[in-house]
Amino acid sequence: MKLAVLLFEGFELLDVFGPLEMLGHLGGELDISLVAESTGPVRSAQGPAACSERSFADSDDYDIVLVPGGIGTRREVDNPACIDWIARSASRARYTASVCTGAALLARAGVLDGRKATTNKLAYAWVCSQGPNTQWQAKARWVQDGNLFTSAGVSAGIDMALALIQHIWGTAKAEEIALWSEYVWNPDPASDSFAARHGLVAH
Amino acid sequence: MKLAVLLFEGFELLDVFGPLEMLGHLGGELDISLVAESTGPVRSAQGPAACSERSFADSDDYDIVLVPGGIGTRREVDNPACIDWIARSASRARYTASVCTGAALLARAGVLDGRKATTNKLAYAWVCSQGPNTQWQAKARWVQDGNLFTSAGVSAGIDMALALIQHIWGTAKAEEIALWSEYVWNPDPASDSFAARHGLVAH
Repeated sequence: MKLAVLLFEGFELLDVFGPLEMLGHLGGELDISLVAESTGPVRSAQGPAACSERSFADSDDYDIVLVPGGIGTRREVDNPACIDWIARSASRARYTASVCTGAALLARAGVLDGRKATTNKLAYAWVCSQGPNTQWQAKARWVQDGNLFTSAGVSAGIDMALALIQHIWGTAKAEEIALWSEYVWNPDPASDSFAARHGLVAH
Repeated sequence: MKLAVLLFEGFELLDVFGPLEMLGHLGGELDISLVAESTGPVRSAQGPAACSERSFADSDDYDIVLVPGGIGTRREVDNPACIDWIARSASRARYTASVCTGAALLARAGVLDGRKATTNKLAYAWVCSQGPNTQWQAKARWVQDGNLFTSAGVSAGIDMALALIQHIWGTAKAEEIALWSEYVWNPDPASDSFAARHGLVAH
């Protein structure tokens, strides 16, 4: 299978590399591409840059499309090149996923219309405003709606990535990768303390 | 303060970008550099590349030096350029830290002689063999010995990075960053289930 991870200036580091740590352990079963509007270095919200090896002009034929969040999403929601790439590649993909405010980009691309989804709790109102036809779930570590996986903020993408691995490759594989990474996986999508801590639901 | 994060071919993604997600939220308080033998793209163990903007030939005057693990450590323990850079920069730094098998590189650079440290549980015997004069701690999420912080495998680096932030900038700052990242911080360095799960200590 082929995985595309979207990069843009101001992407959140862990939104990209948390899931990629987990998905990267599938070895030959998954071909990973970092995709951006142009190839070359793409600066993260934290400063360090990752290298995109594919651009929007290349094939959009991916099995899994993963869209991270980060401060750059505030700009990219109004970038037709980015939104068009997401709409095209997601329409062909078997699975589409977002981490954190990446859900705003999926929403603007129409991917979340009529679907259940979640997002970052601190930027919750802004993201929801980008997808008025989405059934937003405030209290969720991640949400699976069919072939659509959306996670809460930043570190939640790691738990969601393991759930995606579980869905496609089975529970044993997800647990094996978590154990290898010495990661205490939260395997329950409803287990989320942050919605309450950020005042979105009652304690 | 200035932070250097070492990169080498085959570095483990989350070893670098887990801590950088947390340390990256210090904003203007921390200047982050990715440092490698040469500047330019450096491929991770999982495939995706990060961009090094500084090389071993540049200044080695950093306040914090962070050394990740990954399969590339098996080669780098025998790379004098890498080991010399670690020895030089760690001797000048206020804090030195490693994640996972990065401890093998610190050990070879002499940084761990006579000190307490921990490392990845799956590669435990190999890492210990690189530092015969180190007081290795099998059951630990991370170990602090004065200005030296070493973490267990992969995801443990996130908990250690928050402990380093706590040590330097205070508990409130560490908790604020964990909350922002929707990360369930394990703030107890002795809380480690993986040493037993990997057979290093009794259950």
